[in-house]
Amino acid sequence: MTNPISLAQGREYLAIPGPSVMPDAVLQAMHRPSPNIYDGELIEMMPALTRDLRRVARTEHHVAIYISNGHGTWEAALSNVIAPGETVLAPASGRFTHGWAEMAEGIGAKVELIDFGTSSPWDMERIADALRADTGYRIKAVLAVHVDTSSSIRNDIPALRALLDDLNHPALLMADCIASLGCDRFEMDAWGVDVMVTACQKGLMTPAGVGFVFFNDKAQAKRAEMPRVSQYWDWQPRAKPELFYQYFNGTAPTHHLYGLRAALDLIHAEGIERVWTRHERLATAIWTACETWAEGGALQLNVADRAHRSHAVTTLRLTDARGTPLRQFTETQMGLTLGIGLGMEDWNGFFRLGHMGHVNGQMVMAILGGMETAMAAQNIPRGKGALEAAAAVLSQ
Amino acid sequence: MTNPISLAQGREYLAIPGPSVMPDAVLQAMHRPSPNIYDGELIEMMPALTRDLRRVARTEHHVAIYISNGHGTWEAALSNVIAPGETVLAPASGRFTHGWAEMAEGIGAKVELIDFGTSSPWDMERIADALRADTGYRIKAVLAVHVDTSSSIRNDIPALRALLDDLNHPALLMADCIASLGCDRFEMDAWGVDVMVTACQKGLMTPAGVGFVFFNDKAQAKRAEMPRVSQYWDWQPRAKPELFYQYFNGTAPTHHLYGLRAALDLIHAEGIERVWTRHERLATAIWTACETWAEGGALQLNVADRAHRSHAVTTLRLTDARGTPLRQFTETQMGLTLGIGLGMEDWNGFFRLGHMGHVNGQMVMAILGGMETAMAAQNIPRGKGALEAAAAVLSQ
Amino acid sequence: MTNPISLAQGREYLAIPGPSVMPDAVLQAMHRPSPNIYDGELIEMMPALTRDLRRVARTEHHVAIYISNGHGTWEAALSNVIAPGETVLAPASGRFTHGWAEMAEGIGAKVELIDFGTSSPWDMERIADALRADTGYRIKAVLAVHVDTSSSIRNDIPALRALLDDLNHPALLMADCIASLGCDRFEMDAWGVDVMVTACQKGLMTPAGVGFVFFNDKAQAKRAEMPRVSQYWDWQPRAKPELFYQYFNGTAPTHHLYGLRAALDLIHAEGIERVWTRHERLATAIWTACETWAEGGALQLNVADRAHRSHAVTTLRLTDARGTPLRQFTETQMGLTLGIGLGMEDWNGFFRLGHMGHVNGQMVMAILGGMETAMAAQNIPRGKGALEAAAAVLSQ
Amino acid sequence: MTNPISLAQGREYLAIPGPSVMPDAVLQAMHRPSPNIYDGELIEMMPALTRDLRRVARTEHHVAIYISNGHGTWEAALSNVIAPGETVLAPASGRFTHGWAEMAEGIGAKVELIDFGTSSPWDMERIADALRADTGYRIKAVLAVHVDTSSSIRNDIPALRALLDDLNHPALLMADCIASLGCDRFEMDAWGVDVMVTACQKGLMTPAGVGFVFFNDKAQAKRAEMPRVSQYWDWQPRAKPELFYQYFNGTAPTHHLYGLRAALDLIHAEGIERVWTRHERLATAIWTACETWAEGGALQLNVADRAHRSHAVTTLRLTDARGTPLRQFTETQMGLTLGIGLGMEDWNGFFRLGHMGHVNGQMVMAILGGMETAMAAQNIPRGKGALEAAAAVLSQ
Repeated sequence: MTNPISLAQGREYLAIPGPSVMPDAVLQAMHRPSPNIYDGELIEMMPALTRDLRRVARTEHHVAIYISNGHGTWEAALSNVIAPGETVLAPASGRFTHGWAEMAEGIGAKVELIDFGTSSPWDMERIADALRADTGYRIKAVLAVHVDTSSSIRNDIPALRALLDDLNHPALLMADCIASLGCDRFEMDAWGVDVMVTACQKGLMTPAGVGFVFFNDKAQAKRAEMPRVSQYWDWQPRAKPELFYQYFNGTAPTHHLYGLRAALDLIHAEGIERVWTRHERLATAIWTACETWAEGGALQLNVADRAHRSHAVTTLRLTDARGTPLRQFTETQMGLTLGIGLGMEDWNGFFRLGHMGHVNGQMVMAILGGMETAMAAQNIPRGKGALEAAAAVLSQ
Repeated sequence: MTNPISLAQGREYLAIPGPSVMPDAVLQAMHRPSPNIYDGELIEMMPALTRDLRRVARTEHHVAIYISNGHGTWEAALSNVIAPGETVLAPASGRFTHGWAEMAEGIGAKVELIDFGTSSPWDMERIADALRADTGYRIKAVLAVHVDTSSSIRNDIPALRALLDDLNHPALLMADCIASLGCDRFEMDAWGVDVMVTACQKGLMTPAGVGFVFFNDKAQAKRAEMPRVSQYWDWQPRAKPELFYQYFNGTAPTHHLYGLRAALDLIHAEGIERVWTRHERLATAIWTACETWAEGGALQLNVADRAHRSHAVTTLRLTDARGTPLRQFTETQMGLTLGIGLGMEDWNGFFRLGHMGHVNGQMVMAILGGMETAMAAQNIPRGKGALEAAAAVLSQ
Repeated sequence: MTNPISLAQGREYLAIPGPSVMPDAVLQAMHRPSPNIYDGELIEMMPALTRDLRRVARTEHHVAIYISNGHGTWEAALSNVIAPGETVLAPASGRFTHGWAEMAEGIGAKVELIDFGTSSPWDMERIADALRADTGYRIKAVLAVHVDTSSSIRNDIPALRALLDDLNHPALLMADCIASLGCDRFEMDAWGVDVMVTACQKGLMTPAGVGFVFFNDKAQAKRAEMPRVSQYWDWQPRAKPELFYQYFNGTAPTHHLYGLRAALDLIHAEGIERVWTRHERLATAIWTACETWAEGGALQLNVADRAHRSHAVTTLRLTDARGTPLRQFTETQMGLTLGIGLGMEDWNGFFRLGHMGHVNGQMVMAILGGMETAMAAQNIPRGKGALEAAAAVLSQ
Repeated sequence: MTNPISLAQGREYLAIPGPSVMPDAVLQAMHRPSPNIYDGELIEMMPALTRDLRRVARTEHHVAIYISNGHGTWEAALSNVIAPGETVLAPASGRFTHGWAEMAEGIGAKVELIDFGTSSPWDMERIADALRADTGYRIKAVLAVHVDTSSSIRNDIPALRALLDDLNHPALLMADCIASLGCDRFEMDAWGVDVMVTACQKGLMTPAGVGFVFFNDKAQAKRAEMPRVSQYWDWQPRAKPELFYQYFNGTAPTHHLYGLRAALDLIHAEGIERVWTRHERLATAIWTACETWAEGGALQLNVADRAHRSHAVTTLRLTDARGTPLRQFTETQMGLTLGIGLGMEDWNGFFRLGHMGHVNGQMVMAILGGMETAMAAQNIPRGKGALEAAAAVLSQ
């Protein structure tokens, strides 16, 4: 590799698995004066906003909006339904289940963790074993990460629901859709999810700063039995938009609400089903290119089975710690920033592609073209025809 | 009053006591693509950002940034130093001490509240009595609201510090500077404040969504003894900017950090001492006009003594519930939105002026001119020469 | 006057007679990617845009949009109807008729100028004399500045039309509405104006860069007889929106068109009649204050008769060259920028207030409050009660 | 071709040959209040602005800024040096020389046009013949389009200069760099160009609305002899930044000046030599892909010889009128807008790629990936390996 001149001066493309690319409409909606928080427009827009959030999550139940990031919604959700000393089951297929489990411990919960490593989805049999063993129903909730942002594994939530139903286990099914909502198909009510947490900066295409906890009546029943829930995390007043000031436990996240409104308008103008199909098609193009490269060499997809891959993030590995140099090349020479490997031992080997939210066909070709260029620059062995194969997928 | 045509079409002026007027520089800084949150510019700007925050608070100790509003920082601060069952003392001179006290109860604390009503500052003797009575040092902290946004009372923090010192009482002095930081003089270290909470949307001139907890080593010593602190509220990892991802317990509030950077640049370019002097002068002009109006009639200032008035918010009252109609006139006819009365029985009588943050002389004259117009429209009896008296103050 | 600390840090208010205050909606509409200029949305929005421009001008005839400033539209309009060697009549009541006349000379026209000074409107008798003397109809057009931005004189266009009609003089009536369109009542068709020029940065509330020439069929008939019109100024292809690329003689002013669209939406949402009434009321408040100040002293209104004053700009004078220091005070101490005196011998005595376009009641009180403060700071003798008198006008 | 679902929802990429992609920094700089146009910051920034414009053009001579588009600068430049009845020579290798020639006729000039078609550069011999035949030096200027935006031909300006010198012909060498400045190497002084015109919306990365005429002392000498130059086009007062108001012949293009400042900062931060090299490298990648596709089939590059191709725009052709369907596919299915064919008989066969200004490696791969996808969707025969070949160029 010679030392190339930089070809990076131009529009920067941040293709990391969150925060995602913010649509112009969202950024514009946030570029505005402060609104009145006690009266008028902002308050009047809340009912439609929460309705449209629920439409994305496919639920007719409740949603609480928090000024927090996704980690905050982990704590918020747990705080409403898990009392100190109670137990949760955490089947982990990547970094983020561990993180959620640690937050559960932070509020005094006991955690039973099943570790499936960083490249495999849940093994339903092992989860079944754990639930069967819990004859006394100590387990009050299962912490189910839908898509793990580090490993890019997508787990099978309906199968977990079916398992709980088969076993008649009363534990709440709590889903983390931070990396999947608005990208991968998710249907809260139809799938029988009791609590779902997510945040705004990925599929919801809004700058980081607002998180959401969706919950159904079964979860609320557990909430009602809680000895104490801290005011900031209490979802009860937050689920009643008629009490605006209480709704956000203080000052509302004024500008984020306008940004979120614009993002929801984009989603529903396209149609959530079409949003899912778009993500699926774009992901398939990316996989096709990566699989082609992988045939010839050094690149590996972290998740072997397409059926278990996220449509929003793809975790890749280059042996000999060449992931980091590849990222550095695309960033400094091409104007394309890829995501670092996260939660992996071989830190410098892994990297990740974000393809969530405001992403279209030309952007996917930019990512793949950037990777091809970087691999060429670094003489990384790879299969031929990857870009054309991806284009063929997109052309269908 | 005839039915006037609206003269409101023009630049809207939101003169409520928070959120304040956002500077163009702040809004522009937030209108940008998402940055990488794992590498690069955003991470590199954190040390200077926290340094410049501490400069506003006049402390050399620690600051933790939370994605939350001001209420969230109440819970955050308490969660780090007050264990369930421990007691706090809450001397209240307005709505917000009650609010903070309720949040303390929400985390399991016992609250000893002294209520000074809604138009009087702390009576130091009564606080002294409470502390003297606490011979066993059950009181672990005093919740001291510097400026109450509802009543516009400004309390004497240094006097409270002196009292604690005189009595050798070990309770932490916890200050709420949500409505005062960047407006009224506040010197955390010189005044011996152990914990200070504030938020971004008032004197810090940044859209709501980020809060701050400042703490010194005495507070950290209490934190170290805590049986458990939930991860989201734990201030320890947040006070170590070298751990960026841990710093925000997950995804950073990307766009807010850029906005905050722009706001801190404005503050330090002007100089914090000059910021305080500006607020004092502008407040004095407002008081002068209001006192002049009050001589002739219906308008009353909520706080009688200038020495106890906030420089950032002024609470006013019109008898016969005429506050609300006045606000409605300025908003719909003049393009000027004033703040509602808050925490008062006579809701429709009270209203509030916000004059915090990005406020200058011409804006103060707009507020006062709007009030004069509205009172004229509504035939409210009032003293003459109020506007000229205010101008005289500004001219000096 | 002592040396005050600056109270200017806050939202700056530029109250000069153009460019005016840009609405947020306009600036936001311009903050967007480049559109395609050959196909799609931009082209499709043109018919409604030109229709809504014509609605502001009260004409059913033609409008050509130029990438130029107001001076450019002077040259554009002249170039279409005045051939080298032809004569125009220019009745001047301020700087800008002289400017237009100079541009006419620049394209080879002969100019017959009648100078009414800088504080008087047209004397219709003197104009009548000139027209009567023109028995051979050498005069091809009368250059009629509706409102002169320097003197703030508003001339009587309908009277001029009546005069031309009475005398059966065939000269085109060409009006400059740069400082009046969207502020003062103007009705192109009803008033019998043949050509009208204006620009976007005053009553049309869009950043400087686009100008407009409206013309009727009589003017087009003269155009059709012209020996040669340069391509850039030729209004013919510009008045046919079906030819988009030709419409702008090359690349369209992409971002300005979006800004203008937003501005026209504001105007028509309010209603042009209500826009005029608002400007009239705001101007009356300003005059009332200034007349009150004038009673007691040094301040003088440039135009004595209210009937001849612009509703969009007010020219004032302080003796002893105190206009400039007053402006400097409001700008550096209050955050309020007033307009310099223009076209007057006593440069430093004159200054101007802009109150055009996006202006409401609270902004007018800010201007007047700023002036009161500055006059107080500089011990300028003045009548009392000016601000209250203005408020009384606004309150009605 | 089946009917694909749209994969266009995401960041739109407008890859037409102007207007180009506007950098965020430019759009942000334009999102601001109106400045004072008589005093202060805006005026103070002009000397550095014109200096930095001259640095892009590589000249130490003069620059006049016009509120106009590129066509306006054609008329502006001609108006200063060509009197009615004088002759210009126009060697045409694309649509835009014809356009400039028509504007020359519009101001009364005689045009001697040599047409080299739409896919060939100048034939210097034919130009030499025309100049040699002009023994009386009737030809006052040669209109030399550096890069024709329709054909993407780049002509050899230094060779034309050498020819004029060899023949001792005194005609002014007037260059149109609208599509080349800030993209292709251009050195006004070193190349002996007397007048150069350009506009802001291509290599200068600023929304359309401002144009520039650069001129040297030889051109100014011709200007000084002109019988009359209209005021708006007269470049003399515009080249003296010390006269700000006169500088723009009226109101300044306030917001454009801030946008232009930001764009010039980007250019000079990168370095103009590196800007040229980047464009060359990106163009080479595009050519390489297109040549590979061309080997196998239907795609043709309009300009056969790389030495005569623009580095900023590439004109392509698909037989059987398949250019338009290809453009429609990339726009509606991929989020990528390509340029229409212009000035060609086979309108629907041609299309153009813009790669000017704010363009980097990942964007070029997006364009090429979009084309590959569209050709796949439409079963257009093409050579294989085009994208990898382009990536190989970028990787060097």
